[in-house]
Amino acid sequence: MSFLAKKKCEGVLGATGSVGQRFILLLADHPFLVLHKIGASSRSAGKKYKDAVKWKQSVPMSDELGELVIQACKATEFSDCDLVFSGLDSDVAGDIGIFTSNLLLSFSIMQLCEMYVFVIDQYTEIEFAKAEIPIFSNAKNYRKHPLVPLVVPTVNPSHLEIIPHQRRDLGMKKGFIVCNSNCAVIGIVIPLAALQAKFGPVEEIEVFTEQAISGAGYPGVPSLDIVDNVIPFISGEEDKLENEAQKILGSIDGTAFQEQDGLRIGATCTRVGVTDGHMAFVSLRFKNRPSPSPEQVTEALREYQSEVHKLGAYSAPKQAIRVFNEPDRPQPRLDRNISNGYTVSVGRIRSGNGGHFDIRYACLSHNTVIGAAGSSILNAEIAAIKGYL
Amino acid sequence: MSFLAKKKCEGVLGATGSVGQRFILLLADHPFLVLHKIGASSRSAGKKYKDAVKWKQSVPMSDELGELVIQACKATEFSDCDLVFSGLDSDVAGDIGIFTSNLLLSFSIMQLCEMYVFVIDQYTEIEFAKAEIPIFSNAKNYRKHPLVPLVVPTVNPSHLEIIPHQRRDLGMKKGFIVCNSNCAVIGIVIPLAALQAKFGPVEEIEVFTEQAISGAGYPGVPSLDIVDNVIPFISGEEDKLENEAQKILGSIDGTAFQEQDGLRIGATCTRVGVTDGHMAFVSLRFKNRPSPSPEQVTEALREYQSEVHKLGAYSAPKQAIRVFNEPDRPQPRLDRNISNGYTVSVGRIRSGNGGHFDIRYACLSHNTVIGAAGSSILNAEIAAIKGYL
Amino acid sequence: MSFLAKKKCEGVLGATGSVGQRFILLLADHPFLVLHKIGASSRSAGKKYKDAVKWKQSVPMSDELGELVIQACKATEFSDCDLVFSGLDSDVAGDIGIFTSNLLLSFSIMQLCEMYVFVIDQYTEIEFAKAEIPIFSNAKNYRKHPLVPLVVPTVNPSHLEIIPHQRRDLGMKKGFIVCNSNCAVIGIVIPLAALQAKFGPVEEIEVFTEQAISGAGYPGVPSLDIVDNVIPFISGEEDKLENEAQKILGSIDGTAFQEQDGLRIGATCTRVGVTDGHMAFVSLRFKNRPSPSPEQVTEALREYQSEVHKLGAYSAPKQAIRVFNEPDRPQPRLDRNISNGYTVSVGRIRSGNGGHFDIRYACLSHNTVIGAAGSSILNAEIAAIKGYL
Amino acid sequence: MSFLAKKKCEGVLGATGSVGQRFILLLADHPFLVLHKIGASSRSAGKKYKDAVKWKQSVPMSDELGELVIQACKATEFSDCDLVFSGLDSDVAGDIGIFTSNLLLSFSIMQLCEMYVFVIDQYTEIEFAKAEIPIFSNAKNYRKHPLVPLVVPTVNPSHLEIIPHQRRDLGMKKGFIVCNSNCAVIGIVIPLAALQAKFGPVEEIEVFTEQAISGAGYPGVPSLDIVDNVIPFISGEEDKLENEAQKILGSIDGTAFQEQDGLRIGATCTRVGVTDGHMAFVSLRFKNRPSPSPEQVTEALREYQSEVHKLGAYSAPKQAIRVFNEPDRPQPRLDRNISNGYTVSVGRIRSGNGGHFDIRYACLSHNTVIGAAGSSILNAEIAAIKGYL
Repeated sequence: MSFLAKKKCEGVLGATGSVGQRFILLLADHPFLVLHKIGASSRSAGKKYKDAVKWKQSVPMSDELGELVIQACKATEFSDCDLVFSGLDSDVAGDIGIFTSNLLLSFSIMQLCEMYVFVIDQYTEIEFAKAEIPIFSNAKNYRKHPLVPLVVPTVNPSHLEIIPHQRRDLGMKKGFIVCNSNCAVIGIVIPLAALQAKFGPVEEIEVFTEQAISGAGYPGVPSLDIVDNVIPFISGEEDKLENEAQKILGSIDGTAFQEQDGLRIGATCTRVGVTDGHMAFVSLRFKNRPSPSPEQVTEALREYQSEVHKLGAYSAPKQAIRVFNEPDRPQPRLDRNISNGYTVSVGRIRSGNGGHFDIRYACLSHNTVIGAAGSSILNAEIAAIKGYL
Repeated sequence: MSFLAKKKCEGVLGATGSVGQRFILLLADHPFLVLHKIGASSRSAGKKYKDAVKWKQSVPMSDELGELVIQACKATEFSDCDLVFSGLDSDVAGDIGIFTSNLLLSFSIMQLCEMYVFVIDQYTEIEFAKAEIPIFSNAKNYRKHPLVPLVVPTVNPSHLEIIPHQRRDLGMKKGFIVCNSNCAVIGIVIPLAALQAKFGPVEEIEVFTEQAISGAGYPGVPSLDIVDNVIPFISGEEDKLENEAQKILGSIDGTAFQEQDGLRIGATCTRVGVTDGHMAFVSLRFKNRPSPSPEQVTEALREYQSEVHKLGAYSAPKQAIRVFNEPDRPQPRLDRNISNGYTVSVGRIRSGNGGHFDIRYACLSHNTVIGAAGSSILNAEIAAIKGYL
Repeated sequence: MSFLAKKKCEGVLGATGSVGQRFILLLADHPFLVLHKIGASSRSAGKKYKDAVKWKQSVPMSDELGELVIQACKATEFSDCDLVFSGLDSDVAGDIGIFTSNLLLSFSIMQLCEMYVFVIDQYTEIEFAKAEIPIFSNAKNYRKHPLVPLVVPTVNPSHLEIIPHQRRDLGMKKGFIVCNSNCAVIGIVIPLAALQAKFGPVEEIEVFTEQAISGAGYPGVPSLDIVDNVIPFISGEEDKLENEAQKILGSIDGTAFQEQDGLRIGATCTRVGVTDGHMAFVSLRFKNRPSPSPEQVTEALREYQSEVHKLGAYSAPKQAIRVFNEPDRPQPRLDRNISNGYTVSVGRIRSGNGGHFDIRYACLSHNTVIGAAGSSILNAEIAAIKGYL
Repeated sequence: MSFLAKKKCEGVLGATGSVGQRFILLLADHPFLVLHKIGASSRSAGKKYKDAVKWKQSVPMSDELGELVIQACKATEFSDCDLVFSGLDSDVAGDIGIFTSNLLLSFSIMQLCEMYVFVIDQYTEIEFAKAEIPIFSNAKNYRKHPLVPLVVPTVNPSHLEIIPHQRRDLGMKKGFIVCNSNCAVIGIVIPLAALQAKFGPVEEIEVFTEQAISGAGYPGVPSLDIVDNVIPFISGEEDKLENEAQKILGSIDGTAFQEQDGLRIGATCTRVGVTDGHMAFVSLRFKNRPSPSPEQVTEALREYQSEVHKLGAYSAPKQAIRVFNEPDRPQPRLDRNISNGYTVSVGRIRSGNGGHFDIRYACLSHNTVIGAAGSSILNAEIAAIKGYL
């Protein structure tokens, strides 16, 4: 394909954070996306990457990467990039408002500096777009914007069709902004899309999560809070779980998104001592009666093929969903790396036994791959195939 | 009170197991229950306790205890005991039927020996009763028996009223058998009892658990399964959660129990790397409309006083339920030892936001204290106060 | 004893930190030391304790404690206290000098504020003494001061004899300052004292530690650094291990200390995912030939009685040292709470097999009890018995 | 090279164990070693691999592998293999003798069956050799045999020169047996070889280890022993550490090995909650005076090139040793996978400060790659290059 012939230079914003580190890892051997520039807070700008980052990946950083010099996250610094990935994570920053001053004081200076940078940068992500640099964002700021597609690549790549309208509206020719969803939402919405495609709308979901510590960044969760313990709360997370899926699972109607109507989600989010991989336990009720059996659900998940497979995107996993029959799977340590973290695993599919819910199952997603950086990369590949890049 | 004046000699069956160890810890300083004999599998009989047990408690075993000689678990060996506590745990044994031969092979010989002993002993628990030795059981075998009370001490001590009928039916004068519920059920049913007492029947519950490794005994969960991991399945556990509460929350009507009608429970049970303390996350729907607000639920839980408090039982906690306002509590490591593990903690009380469920909350219970041994001890204290002992 | 008859009002400085929290726990039921005032950084001053502290103990804080109002750590605020315990921990603060600016930025604002307070407060600890308030310090600032006793209560209580000279020198009548050693040093020095008392001087020690995360305070060690990991380095710790024991094990000669000559210590310190309890693995060489056998070493440790036992100090453990014969003990989770954390456990005593070292063993100490707050409390009890308080 | 042109069919014995699983993972993409047959205990023989194994690797098993049928571990079943790798681990089996009956009972039936198989199989490994099937063993049984090379591939590949003599002695034409060392020994001996090559003999070593749970197999270490805990003892391990290095570091003199004389090793082995990666902390004394400086040691480790690099073995890491300057590295989670686990990492190189030891450092090795299966594979590659295969 022609887009493969042409290498694209890309930049990574927020390159020292945990999502930024994952971007860099995933792009290391990419056939046509070539890491060209890295950006971080102005505090780190001018330093070599190896001197500014606390690298916490189990794959060592390459020597070349370590020598890269960090730029400030300004559009002018990235004007020679064909596109930019942003790991600037407003999921942390956005929560500032609800912190008591006491809690705020427990943030590290680094976190606070980044927050400040975020408060600026997350709203300047759009500045990259306006400067005609396409940007793929992991922050939450534009997720609900009526002209910004919120794309989970194995679910709703068609939402990229809004890009021409977005460009028109904001006066851009080449630039645009595409958003990722929250890491926990992404894992949940993929099986949901498969089930709705086959059995019609889901009416109500009760979801419970066990989320990995890498989701909180570094230094993130103190060890005294997680050794011999779980934390039954993640600030702001339940709200995202209850409200982002409706846009992703909704439709695009010419120039506007239509959120899925009548989909109610109730969420409980907890933190457990797992490095990577969010577990989600889902109970759901379909609208149509009779509802499908566990066997039918299993088959539908197993057979699910999303548009991204047909498009032939390089990073697309063979299976968007891997279904387990073993009663005790999926498990984070064993299954998070299936298809390098691009596949979501589902298991424990069982009947609701005549209660309010029709079906229960467990699913696992790699929170920094398909739940963050990997989704952005796949979105970029799709955008390239569709001619937006 | 007169029963306080009279010391009772008690025996502990299954004394080398994790529930048995907890019995011994809790009884160490008891004012009128005096440890007299300990029983374990025939393999351990005749050995000193210190030579037969793998003591895994964070409180050291006393020298006196270490020197106690283990008896076989036969009624004849315990005929000089006023009562017997049984930590024989058929929760493990009972699952044998569903194991594949491959899984079975992964059990230790010790576990299998115990299982065999269990298969015998759990059905011989009733032999202790018939031999006129009152027995307080943690096994599941008699929980559903129509003449055996299934008692959570801070919920339904009135169910002990069945004892005279049980004695009549089985031809006993002093003997009887009283059962505990499953460790996870106990933690859930206490707040539920408080809410139903105030707001009328609950119609449906969706419950999700994060259970401690001590619940699986020793050696129990292999470390390779729990470091950097969670296990999304506990064999047989969900079934107990879905089916035991109805009897506990039901009524006693003269000579028979009446299970609570129309209470549907859907359960998902997971294992996490916590030593002690089961977390349960509950979403529930009341029958009566309008349903209570989170504030009303909070107040009802806070004010809950069960019969056991009025009776003045020695081990009864001041509060059956401790309510937290902090958004990130209760947590296992910080809160499992409130009132020495006899209190259940509840937090994160919040509205169902107009969905199927009215209320959501998190609760924490110490799985080997109020979830097992402590419940039996409180049950014995109540039985003594009520004159059955 | 007369000192028992008279209650002493005491204050705790650094009350919100992890050593401060442990002070408060240990003093909760103390027969004659009554918690009167609590101090913390000026940022917390004026707040209720429950609103300023992140309580991380497995025993809940009492309601009374929660309502106590925090004072600034100034001598004027504590003038009505008979003595003051200081949990101000310069072990953290003191390391500032070696941090790169990058590392420094990873400290939380709370930590940095405390550091700043420390930088002030640790050097103002002496101000309390000068204001005639006896102070027991956990900080490192005065440990090497020629007029300040560095006392491990089960080792060298006689070093308190310097107090009159200290008072004379600094112009105080009632005030004085007594220091604790570093938490890891304390655990090592107790068995060492027992062995030297019996077999004469030790010439060389190679020590390796596995230290608990509570030793780094809160938030302290990030969970991403300790889940499925160990950290082979603790900043500044090895230096303390190599240099503090010589003063503790030295003698007091009229008005001056004489450090133990010719005792060389080589140390390697690591951090592991244990909440409380430092393990130390010691290989040592005695000066005298022939060296004692493992059996002789075992007996000497078992029989060790320090002066504190003869003095009848309230918190003194029955045994300063508990010796294990089991090959796999002591272990942190099982043994750290022996005698409420005031006893040090030793096991794995074995021969050096003809190499440079004569003997190897493992020891375990509760790092915030005997390793910090508990030592200060025992030191205060001794000071009271000896008439300095 | 010619040996690359010719594919070799290989078999893996003990294929269901943790070393066996690692063999299979490492051989999955091997250019000329093709997995042909897998063997396990007679209990598993005849089953599909996926039905017999508890796969605990973070990389999923392939579908093809899952369908492979397990053979009994008899030479006749593997007669069509060009070579055989054995993951039969007598490190476990060999310890039977020292277990008390009580401890023995805590082993799973699976473990005991395997032990029984081991007791047979480990002594039948030689039967494979006699049946003319070259065998690379991880068991300890033949490590000390005077005609069996104990080879760490980046240290002493020249020891394979004994093969002709071994063949002569045992009457074999093509068959032979080559042994791996213990997983902890391998990690220690590689830096040691580099240092001795440059600075002459080491006289004494004090080594302390923090070993991963995967080293104990599955189910292995119970989680109740490792959560919030460390275990200060690994049965039989210290003995291997103190006695295997001398043969590896010794010379081959025509037809016999000469162990390194005068190398004394003192070892302390502990188990920590890390999945993979053994840490070893080494203090050592050179024979020659003056001893090298830390800088010289660093340089010698960094420049070390072993014979295996010159031979061009396929799996040989670019660097046998990776040296870290960062004070807190290497760490298991971050560094165990360098060069896919074939490289040993060294850090914290520092002076002995005038004590008995000249130098201290920390090293990390992946216990199931370079510490077990990977070493065997490299040994096989070397044997092929040298014409023994």
